[in-house]
Amino acid sequence: MKFRNFKMVDYVVYGRGCFDQLDEIIAPHRKEGAPMVFLLDQYFENDAAFKARIPLKGNDQLLIADVTYEPKTSQVDAIATQLKEQFGTVSGIIGIGGGSVMDLAAAVSLMITNPGKAEDYQGWDLVKNPGVYKVGIPTISGTGAEVSRTCVLSGPERKLGMNSDFTPFDQIVLDPELIKSVPKNQRFYTGMDCYIHCIESLQGTYLNAFSQSYGEKALELCQKVFLNKKEWDAESDEDLMMASYAGGMSIAYSQVGVAHAVSYGLAHVLGVKHGIGNCIVFNHLEEFYPEGVKEFHQMVKQADIDIPQGITKGLTEEQFNTMIDVSLNMAPLWENALGKNWREQMTRERLRKLYERL
Amino acid sequence: MKFRNFKMVDYVVYGRGCFDQLDEIIAPHRKEGAPMVFLLDQYFENDAAFKARIPLKGNDQLLIADVTYEPKTSQVDAIATQLKEQFGTVSGIIGIGGGSVMDLAAAVSLMITNPGKAEDYQGWDLVKNPGVYKVGIPTISGTGAEVSRTCVLSGPERKLGMNSDFTPFDQIVLDPELIKSVPKNQRFYTGMDCYIHCIESLQGTYLNAFSQSYGEKALELCQKVFLNKKEWDAESDEDLMMASYAGGMSIAYSQVGVAHAVSYGLAHVLGVKHGIGNCIVFNHLEEFYPEGVKEFHQMVKQADIDIPQGITKGLTEEQFNTMIDVSLNMAPLWENALGKNWREQMTRERLRKLYERL
Repeated sequence: MKFRNFKMVDYVVYGRGCFDQLDEIIAPHRKEGAPMVFLLDQYFENDAAFKARIPLKGNDQLLIADVTYEPKTSQVDAIATQLKEQFGTVSGIIGIGGGSVMDLAAAVSLMITNPGKAEDYQGWDLVKNPGVYKVGIPTISGTGAEVSRTCVLSGPERKLGMNSDFTPFDQIVLDPELIKSVPKNQRFYTGMDCYIHCIESLQGTYLNAFSQSYGEKALELCQKVFLNKKEWDAESDEDLMMASYAGGMSIAYSQVGVAHAVSYGLAHVLGVKHGIGNCIVFNHLEEFYPEGVKEFHQMVKQADIDIPQGITKGLTEEQFNTMIDVSLNMAPLWENALGKNWREQMTRERLRKLYERL
Repeated sequence: MKFRNFKMVDYVVYGRGCFDQLDEIIAPHRKEGAPMVFLLDQYFENDAAFKARIPLKGNDQLLIADVTYEPKTSQVDAIATQLKEQFGTVSGIIGIGGGSVMDLAAAVSLMITNPGKAEDYQGWDLVKNPGVYKVGIPTISGTGAEVSRTCVLSGPERKLGMNSDFTPFDQIVLDPELIKSVPKNQRFYTGMDCYIHCIESLQGTYLNAFSQSYGEKALELCQKVFLNKKEWDAESDEDLMMASYAGGMSIAYSQVGVAHAVSYGLAHVLGVKHGIGNCIVFNHLEEFYPEGVKEFHQMVKQADIDIPQGITKGLTEEQFNTMIDVSLNMAPLWENALGKNWREQMTRERLRKLYERL
């Protein structure tokens, strides 16, 4: 199809305190004997007060999601296999956490109902069956994972999502109260994931009016909370949560660009996480996004954040080559950023110099 | 629930020319022997070129939707009954047209699968069964009907929608090419439906950050096409189509206000259509929305439109009283506009004077 037929999340509830409606929301989806499985970000492991608000009933499971590293296909397989062996099936998977937990929950939901291993479905439209009922509840905002058509996973061969119309959540619960305790640095890096995404898509060649309207709104909200307001307040949580949602929706007819393409290389070789990796790269992209990078520097200063520097010092020739290979493999990102003749513009030498500057 | 759990449209495709993907989009929803039913706005009745682009197959039906008046419950029942008698069931209902056709299509879809009459379901959450697959394809933008949770119908007793989670479309097709031939006056009145809606919801007391972000974007797009640009062009069609979508989405956690409440009275007694009715009323609402009305007057001037005046001249005492009754019955609209003590502010006398000015 010329234009993507975009699958939306089925239900969205937004509001301060709406997390406490979760019991009522999931009730119609409970099936006799089959538990609801809550995948909780390890960040909340020792937060007894928050855990007490999770509406556990009967044989429901509360699993702590280890997100020390970004989610792996083997981790998805292990959780799905364990649940299938123990219960046959489950009523639903409810991910409560950051982007990694969102992605993990979506992937586990799909692997309850699809045969084989998660790595078999890394790619586009390979998933055969709808997953079990799945709910995404972000506790940190910026990635847009809550409205995504993919769930990014590191597999034995590659880091690639399970992109499919079965991947989006059946329900998302957007409660700005949940993100108020995010540590400042983490909030900044994840918020910048949204900001950088907006700059890349709005300046890209793939854009249309649908994605532009979402991208502009997300950008405006990022500017409001990270630049125009001097203090972070409750309204900032509300705005950043909407920025993340709108940024995620804008991906429908847009694509990210240089920062993401370069950052994938860093992630592959050095294991740098997505949010901070994008910041490390974007920090040096004046030649591609002059205004965006200038504004980014202001935001960094205002938030009083130190963006890591010199992280590629001392890498071997082989490591540089691997990073370059991984990055240049992201053809749609480069094409969106630089146009159809991107290969002439972004040579291996130019990219090598860029990596050396990071 | 404290916060509404908002049902989204399942699939959205947006793009210039995406109407020609319709055949491919609906193909997986075709059921053996059961036709796809295309409800086409009477505006296109004699447009052979457009009709030839509708992907009719097998026993598919192309029905011309009479929207001389806004849709009636009896009209919905007649179409649904005829289809059920002739085919047992249908594969889907595809509405192609303005807001009235959208509403008619959604209602017919529901009445294929729900017993009784459409009037039985006027209200909130009365619909028992999901409808058949339904697609909304707007050919005029502004109402937001394409993403609505209701379908407004005039019944024997009242004008009220079938509000339910089963009402939103399974699919919407947003092709800005389709709205380019809308007559200027009609485009203006329907566009102002969106504009007025935004002013009312953004200034209302019910608003939250979700609806605000959509409302602000819709408002900005309306200002762009009706005020900031001197000539209407292809980009204006794209922007107005997105304004309508965003305006419709903003209703999730907002409500309309004075213009809609007053205009319902006009519609009931004089049969004034929704778009023009809102303009007639909003034209005189300086005391409630001073900035919005000022900007509206500029838009009217720039578009060179004559808003009808003096339409309540010569009405009987009884007619005025009926209008006032109908309007004051819209409690949530008044409360959103004026706050909890709206009854003290909006007396029958004050409303009577307002109607006399129209």
